[in-house]
Amino acid sequence: MNKDWLKMMDEKIQFWLQIARKNALESVNKDLKVDTKTSRKDLVTNVDKDNEQFFVRKIRENDPNSKILGEEGFGDKFNSMEGHVWIIDPIDGTMNFVKERNYFAIMVSLYVDGKGLLGYILDVVNNDLYHGIFGKVYRNNELLNKPDDIHLDYGLMGMSAPLLIENAYNMQTIAKQSEGVRIYGSAGIQLISVIKGELVGYISHLKPWDIASGRVMCESLGLTVTTIDGNKLNMVSSETVLVATKIAHKEILDLVK
Amino acid sequence: MNKDWLKMMDEKIQFWLQIARKNALESVNKDLKVDTKTSRKDLVTNVDKDNEQFFVRKIRENDPNSKILGEEGFGDKFNSMEGHVWIIDPIDGTMNFVKERNYFAIMVSLYVDGKGLLGYILDVVNNDLYHGIFGKVYRNNELLNKPDDIHLDYGLMGMSAPLLIENAYNMQTIAKQSEGVRIYGSAGIQLISVIKGELVGYISHLKPWDIASGRVMCESLGLTVTTIDGNKLNMVSSETVLVATKIAHKEILDLVK
Repeated sequence: MNKDWLKMMDEKIQFWLQIARKNALESVNKDLKVDTKTSRKDLVTNVDKDNEQFFVRKIRENDPNSKILGEEGFGDKFNSMEGHVWIIDPIDGTMNFVKERNYFAIMVSLYVDGKGLLGYILDVVNNDLYHGIFGKVYRNNELLNKPDDIHLDYGLMGMSAPLLIENAYNMQTIAKQSEGVRIYGSAGIQLISVIKGELVGYISHLKPWDIASGRVMCESLGLTVTTIDGNKLNMVSSETVLVATKIAHKEILDLVK
Repeated sequence: MNKDWLKMMDEKIQFWLQIARKNALESVNKDLKVDTKTSRKDLVTNVDKDNEQFFVRKIRENDPNSKILGEEGFGDKFNSMEGHVWIIDPIDGTMNFVKERNYFAIMVSLYVDGKGLLGYILDVVNNDLYHGIFGKVYRNNELLNKPDDIHLDYGLMGMSAPLLIENAYNMQTIAKQSEGVRIYGSAGIQLISVIKGELVGYISHLKPWDIASGRVMCESLGLTVTTIDGNKLNMVSSETVLVATKIAHKEILDLVK
């Protein structure tokens, strides 16, 4: 991979993220159109669609032979991570975007032959950008240190409410073992908290675009990212994902049923 | 109640909150001492103690015949809400303060003969102050509108994780009926979200200092605050508290078992 090309793309993506951010913040107070997708709890807005189309257009201009996977379906359909694969979540946490106007993110990443090379999570309201490149992770322009490799019982766990309520995979025991549960309603915002070492881990049923950017950064920071069974993510279908410090990851796998 | 005195106290409290905020932000990076109280999940720091002692001192100077109820026990012991009662939570969400350095609040309120006259919740990291006085609620200096009186199934619910895990009061059904669950780990931060209309309601087992400030504001905004059985809060002991829009409050009481 050409380092100069990655560096150039990095600059462009940061610029595109600011345009997408502006679009989100302007539309939320003006002309937000909200629709449901698979259920009343699964929302999509004109901003999700506009932002995704914007990213798809920009990526096609700059990396025409790549494949694109986007939440709203403006990208391509494929089952293999071969070659350049861009993964886009134009608004992560759409329910929060609509109801709270806070705690939502824009996420973009680039995988090449299955390896995550670039990953971006923009906390829109705080204009706080987390991004991974060349195996390093930055908050805005500041290099982030690896979070401490702490035990499950010494950290707060991010979780999805449906998994907790169903006690799927013995989730309630994992929750009780931790210092407490936090549910923010956006995979991107939860993953930022893991990256910063505020949460010891995060478990949720995720689509590729929910985890792709966070995975790039988590792995660069020495965190472990697998399915809830401890297997490698395939990145092309929905999976229940477990992200945690190395130590807590092992402890959680021992508790999973 | 003398309006001029309340106005003067309002100015002083806003000033004290800024001093307490500065103390919290400075100490968190310097000399934080963390201890446990009733369990490994119940933390206290030197900042909780310093801030409470600071407020107690200031209140005693300005309102010497009042009673003070503070989380860390530097106030008074009493069982009646007669007269002037000040209620202080010097750091609400101490676990978040320690682990996340975000999502925590400082809260102060004044009740006179059981009636809430002043209530303050300061979101410390964002320096975002919500306060209630003379039946009105402000975010910093801006008057807040009443949130829409929405149904449970049209809103996100704040909840405590232990109640959700135990399915206490049929909490899991209430959660599923809503559009989703949010758990932030600080009563103050959750109540700000209810006040702004981002959450349709909040249920948690709370101490008087967790709910006192929020109650003043919620009631001014047309939200309903009761125990989970629909009774009036007594404000001197722990209770499971239900805060919600008028409509959702009724719907939730119908689901409680």
